[in-house]
Amino acid sequence: ASENGGWERVIPAFRSVCGEDGVSLGEAVREQHGRDESVHRCCPPDVVVWPRSVEEVSALAKICHHHHLPIIPFGTGTGLEGGVGALKGGVCFSLRNMDRVLDLHQEDFDVSVEPGVTRKGLNSYLRDTGLWFPVDPGADASLCGMAATSASGTNAVRYGTMRENVLNLEVVLADGSIIHTAGRGRRPRKTSAGYNLTNLFVGSEGTLGVITKTTLRLYGVPEAMVSAVCTFPSVQAAVDSTVQVLQTGVPIARIEFLDDVMIDACNSFNSLSYPVAPTLFLEFHGTEKSLEEQVTVTEEITQANGGSDFSWARDAETRGRLWKARHDAWYAALALRPGCKAYSTDVCVPLSRLPQIIVETKEDLMLNGLTGPIAGHVGDGNFHCIMVMDPNDQDEVIRVHEFTERLARRALALDGTCTGEHGVGLGKRALLREEMGPLAIEVMQGLKATLDPKNLMNPGKVL
Amino acid sequence: ASENGGWERVIPAFRSVCGEDGVSLGEAVREQHGRDESVHRCCPPDVVVWPRSVEEVSALAKICHHHHLPIIPFGTGTGLEGGVGALKGGVCFSLRNMDRVLDLHQEDFDVSVEPGVTRKGLNSYLRDTGLWFPVDPGADASLCGMAATSASGTNAVRYGTMRENVLNLEVVLADGSIIHTAGRGRRPRKTSAGYNLTNLFVGSEGTLGVITKTTLRLYGVPEAMVSAVCTFPSVQAAVDSTVQVLQTGVPIARIEFLDDVMIDACNSFNSLSYPVAPTLFLEFHGTEKSLEEQVTVTEEITQANGGSDFSWARDAETRGRLWKARHDAWYAALALRPGCKAYSTDVCVPLSRLPQIIVETKEDLMLNGLTGPIAGHVGDGNFHCIMVMDPNDQDEVIRVHEFTERLARRALALDGTCTGEHGVGLGKRALLREEMGPLAIEVMQGLKATLDPKNLMNPGKVL
Repeated sequence: ASENGGWERVIPAFRSVCGEDGVSLGEAVREQHGRDESVHRCCPPDVVVWPRSVEEVSALAKICHHHHLPIIPFGTGTGLEGGVGALKGGVCFSLRNMDRVLDLHQEDFDVSVEPGVTRKGLNSYLRDTGLWFPVDPGADASLCGMAATSASGTNAVRYGTMRENVLNLEVVLADGSIIHTAGRGRRPRKTSAGYNLTNLFVGSEGTLGVITKTTLRLYGVPEAMVSAVCTFPSVQAAVDSTVQVLQTGVPIARIEFLDDVMIDACNSFNSLSYPVAPTLFLEFHGTEKSLEEQVTVTEEITQANGGSDFSWARDAETRGRLWKARHDAWYAALALRPGCKAYSTDVCVPLSRLPQIIVETKEDLMLNGLTGPIAGHVGDGNFHCIMVMDPNDQDEVIRVHEFTERLARRALALDGTCTGEHGVGLGKRALLREEMGPLAIEVMQGLKATLDPKNLMNPGKVL
Repeated sequence: ASENGGWERVIPAFRSVCGEDGVSLGEAVREQHGRDESVHRCCPPDVVVWPRSVEEVSALAKICHHHHLPIIPFGTGTGLEGGVGALKGGVCFSLRNMDRVLDLHQEDFDVSVEPGVTRKGLNSYLRDTGLWFPVDPGADASLCGMAATSASGTNAVRYGTMRENVLNLEVVLADGSIIHTAGRGRRPRKTSAGYNLTNLFVGSEGTLGVITKTTLRLYGVPEAMVSAVCTFPSVQAAVDSTVQVLQTGVPIARIEFLDDVMIDACNSFNSLSYPVAPTLFLEFHGTEKSLEEQVTVTEEITQANGGSDFSWARDAETRGRLWKARHDAWYAALALRPGCKAYSTDVCVPLSRLPQIIVETKEDLMLNGLTGPIAGHVGDGNFHCIMVMDPNDQDEVIRVHEFTERLARRALALDGTCTGEHGVGLGKRALLREEMGPLAIEVMQGLKATLDPKNLMNPGKVL
């Protein structure tokens, strides 16, 4: 900023927008980093601002635009691909003070939230309404941040990802102008009016604008839920079961794969005792009666594929324990090697390609002496290797990096994508280019240049 | 084209790409118009070309680009908003000779199709696979055309629209370059890799590029299906039932509303005898057992809202007859006034706003002496007025036009959209501007200018 008059001129302008307490340098800045510091070097911003309204975001963006200062939107910092790093310095827009739930329409199954509202926060707000928001990436992420990274998670096989569940976005563009991607206040369940701006901004990872409000689709809380665990003789048997369950049309809510290493880690971390073998965690949502049938059909399929009897989690507490074990996979993996750090890498392939890629990946891990338990949303063909490594062992860090590139290229060779839900961020830009081809990348660059000609919005990410 | 050397120089170039039979002037050109000629004046192109491959589409586009000739993509001409009119003359790219079904992956629930493949064509190709493609706009439209207009229809409440069911597109851009919106050959069920180009082109109505291949998500054919008809004392009672059915999580496959005028027309046209009152046509998909429960729950809800007993359609033939009646709504409406023409207009609002907008719209029709039976995909809040009018009665044509604008503005005032599934095309450009606001329109114009700087792709549509 020095070339533009220095921070001493900008900071007072920021303060005049969002107050003394709304602007920070120094210590506060260090808090603003992501959970992904293990692989992506920590790049703190020069300044953090805490706007309290879209008008303040807009006013701050105009100042940044005038002074050519990068803008890095920040929700909860739970992203996994370095999306909140300030590669070129600049101003972190921390949005946690905008934390209102707005415009709940129960009969229409929709609600709007500001960026400070997290997934768990919204569901706790909805507790007495009979409605819920199912997209669940594990972390208690900001819903606007989830929109920005096109998050999904365990429930996506039934309820879709953020792409399918965002009805409208309020976005502040690089020049400070405010748009509503589906028109101000609009919330029809479907539309074919003009270009789909909503889904252009969903997954744009802060590189096209700052999301300041998200209108979401809600769902009725199922009358009943039941979870189960089933063990398989092979990865192939677990995947075959998944394909057949989907083929029969069982509306399964969750179908999560854990490999032998992952289940072993979960057993240790959560004092559980599941057999150490390829495993599916399943969840069924519906009426009591429909659950019976869903479970019967599914169990017939899993048993025909050599699966074990179901181990049940019926009441809320037992189910909670089961899914806590799944969501604690990250910490369970970390516990495998105390003192180490973890990085969860993510690919997605067509279902039929899963056994091949998982088997090859496990061989690769073994061959290279790496610790990388596998967990995944197998109903979508999406899985993660949670890479546990010693950040001080430079050789291991390099081997992990090379492994994640091989994994992504393996997914690309099998008609898949280098990221199913974590996004491109900092680490997968070269892979994105391989995935899309140079012409599609040129189109993306053209869109970016149109919306952000000065390249101020989260620069250095995605493209 | 005269200013660029005249057609006499361009036509031989076209012929050298796609042969003598692949280029036409004169008579053949007249065939290329849409079903919507009643309200949108017929604007035939100067030339029609019938390319046989993406390479030919690309080569033809390059010629057009060089000579500044508009390109109008043409699938089946079943669109309803004037999308295929050649407002500025130019070259119609008729894609029916590209009619291959490609790369069916049964285990992965996906398939790719060229633009000549229609919805019914694909489902008949899939007949023995246990799979189907559910998006059903009524007309036997080209699937690539359905992607281009973001089509949906009766099954969308359960299976989603084209937005949710297109995995990848091959697109020829204005300069003739070929891109794959999700990367060449890629077909993961989800991805967060880069900007969502797929959903930028879905619904772009030929204004950003020519779609030459679409990769679609498929579904398992349900074990059983059953349909029913239920009559209500009021629009409110029918809508309340719909909201409650969705709230309980019944995975209803179709829930279609017909007003008294529409059901009366259907009775006459199809020799049926349903009570002349607000009516729901319902369809349930699932296992035999789950159908029982879905039906019980739904019938309890409809009866609590004063609905009649269900009139059943269980076997395939009776169901076929029922849905034929619904799909024949257009012709049934036309038959109300022999010699007249019809125009189906389309809006979408949040569910809770449906009773108000339908009641107000019926009053408006009555007050203005217009014939406009109402049918709609009530589970999505989307409905159509099929306007039947005498095209030679200029006063009536004007009143219909004014009515459709009032209807759209009524939808906008209720947080809705001016089009749920027909698209903007020619007739709703001013309404799109009201819906989105000037800044979002500027963003759309910026995207258009980036992808098609010469404004050659279906000019005069959408924006």
